[in-house]
Amino acid sequence: MHDISQYQDFFNSYLKNQNISKEPKNLYEPMEYILGLGGKRMRPVLTLMSAEVFDTDYKKALPAAMAVEVFHNFSLVHDDIMDDAPLRRGKVTVHEKWNINTGILSGDAMLILAYQYFEQYEPLVFRNLAKLFSKTALEVCEGQQWDVDFEERTDVTIPEYLKMIEYKTAVLVAAAMKMGAIVAETSEKDADLIYDFGLNLGLAFQLQDDYLDAFGDPETFGKQVGGDIIENKKTYLYLKSLEFSTADKALQLENLFHLQLEDNSAKIETAKAIFNESGASKATQEAIEMFTLKAFETLEKMAISEDKKKILKTFGENLMGRTV
Amino acid sequence: MHDISQYQDFFNSYLKNQNISKEPKNLYEPMEYILGLGGKRMRPVLTLMSAEVFDTDYKKALPAAMAVEVFHNFSLVHDDIMDDAPLRRGKVTVHEKWNINTGILSGDAMLILAYQYFEQYEPLVFRNLAKLFSKTALEVCEGQQWDVDFEERTDVTIPEYLKMIEYKTAVLVAAAMKMGAIVAETSEKDADLIYDFGLNLGLAFQLQDDYLDAFGDPETFGKQVGGDIIENKKTYLYLKSLEFSTADKALQLENLFHLQLEDNSAKIETAKAIFNESGASKATQEAIEMFTLKAFETLEKMAISEDKKKILKTFGENLMGRTV
Repeated sequence: MHDISQYQDFFNSYLKNQNISKEPKNLYEPMEYILGLGGKRMRPVLTLMSAEVFDTDYKKALPAAMAVEVFHNFSLVHDDIMDDAPLRRGKVTVHEKWNINTGILSGDAMLILAYQYFEQYEPLVFRNLAKLFSKTALEVCEGQQWDVDFEERTDVTIPEYLKMIEYKTAVLVAAAMKMGAIVAETSEKDADLIYDFGLNLGLAFQLQDDYLDAFGDPETFGKQVGGDIIENKKTYLYLKSLEFSTADKALQLENLFHLQLEDNSAKIETAKAIFNESGASKATQEAIEMFTLKAFETLEKMAISEDKKKILKTFGENLMGRTV
Repeated sequence: MHDISQYQDFFNSYLKNQNISKEPKNLYEPMEYILGLGGKRMRPVLTLMSAEVFDTDYKKALPAAMAVEVFHNFSLVHDDIMDDAPLRRGKVTVHEKWNINTGILSGDAMLILAYQYFEQYEPLVFRNLAKLFSKTALEVCEGQQWDVDFEERTDVTIPEYLKMIEYKTAVLVAAAMKMGAIVAETSEKDADLIYDFGLNLGLAFQLQDDYLDAFGDPETFGKQVGGDIIENKKTYLYLKSLEFSTADKALQLENLFHLQLEDNSAKIETAKAIFNESGASKATQEAIEMFTLKAFETLEKMAISEDKKKILKTFGENLMGRTV
């Protein structure tokens, strides 16, 4: 086994050696651009790590890891169009740098390219990878659609919200890990367990993202603190606040989340105060803890050495201990 | 073997029995809508027909045929966004009926859904189908990108144009037929030959579409006659006219294809006159004939009965004899 930064390096040099930029340039250059913007490469790192957890050289898992990262970047390109986002990882988005049509078409081509990486495996492994990938990719689309639908709705429940983030975010983390298991041709049971590990870790990760968006350290949190509040996003913090608040407090929050302001500092402070007073902040931290523990419990059932369990647990702890 | 209208019926009832509309509705209803708009179902019919040419029940090829049709409709949804098209098959387009974001996301989901239809085959057939599908789908994206790029260029050559229509249109016709051969597990040689048959027929079909767009019977041609001229599309007719014309005639045509008019009847008449006088109309008809004959020559090399060859040839003749 290696440590996270080594897996990141392995993946980044593999990515660098891919000859992505071909003709027509307007189709392939945007792919190279978005894939080159960097990021933590969490998903492909998990695929590589998972393969080694099941006693298989990470090198064998590189094409699958690449498929996961290409898919993730496809979803970023299309989501950025839908959200009309100007920036991604501090750089201008694909549809801003080129145009919307280029963003749509390059994104489509990336989705197809992701499938092509599975062709490097033999038929049975190929089939298992592609099947899991299709199921996951469709769920990610469904999650994105729920997210869009929720913007218009005022009756979103906590279970609905959890299902949305499960589909939009957690299933890809889970699938990234299961792909490592598939490449390693481990038992179905262990493959399903590592999927569950990834799913619960993914849920905890997304809830923590909700939490840090409001309460993160502006110095270390990558995005604008309070961004979700500015955009009136119905996050776990918001929904839990409504659940726990008296009718007039809830109404105050709902009204607050209809405002579009020039200066958002007062709005952010008010929202954060309600999140704290209502008990929603605490409930969110408890939910994060609960999903993290659920992930760790899954580990116990796996037929791998204690050393390996420790490595996965440390990874989870580091991920959850993040303040950024 | 059955006749075309029977294959259409088989395919349409299979399609009708697919339970496409699931939750979230805003993701799946647009799929059901576009797939329900009808059309000749040429591509899936070719898949079914090809399976039976290689002595396999068409029923076995239905999921592959469905994948081809779902992919074709995905490309229509995304192309209609890029072209800002209000109508498709006489009905309002997906992005007009819903919105652009729904068009993007539903399209993405259709591309993934297409892959899922291959899961109904055993691993080796699955792999062969998915591999051909990915290669083809990527080529279709490249063809679409070339088409977009050509709008801005004034130096497009005939070979470049042929490559563009090959990728944008012909490869999917070719792949539809080869998928029938893959499902039938025929020899690689015959699978490649039926691919070439489809490719040449697809090229002939697209060139005929160019031709009919200008010279088709307004009573029977499905689209607006002269549509390509109105939109200043650099079709085979246009490019051949430039090639055959004197410098001042060529300049006249180039200037004509910069106009955006309210009333296009004079523009259409002038363009058609140049297409005829330059010899471009005749050259286009000869090219259609040439690609059709090339398709028929491929048939001769195939290890199938004379009866089967006759059926494929008749299909090609009917397709090319169309006046609509």
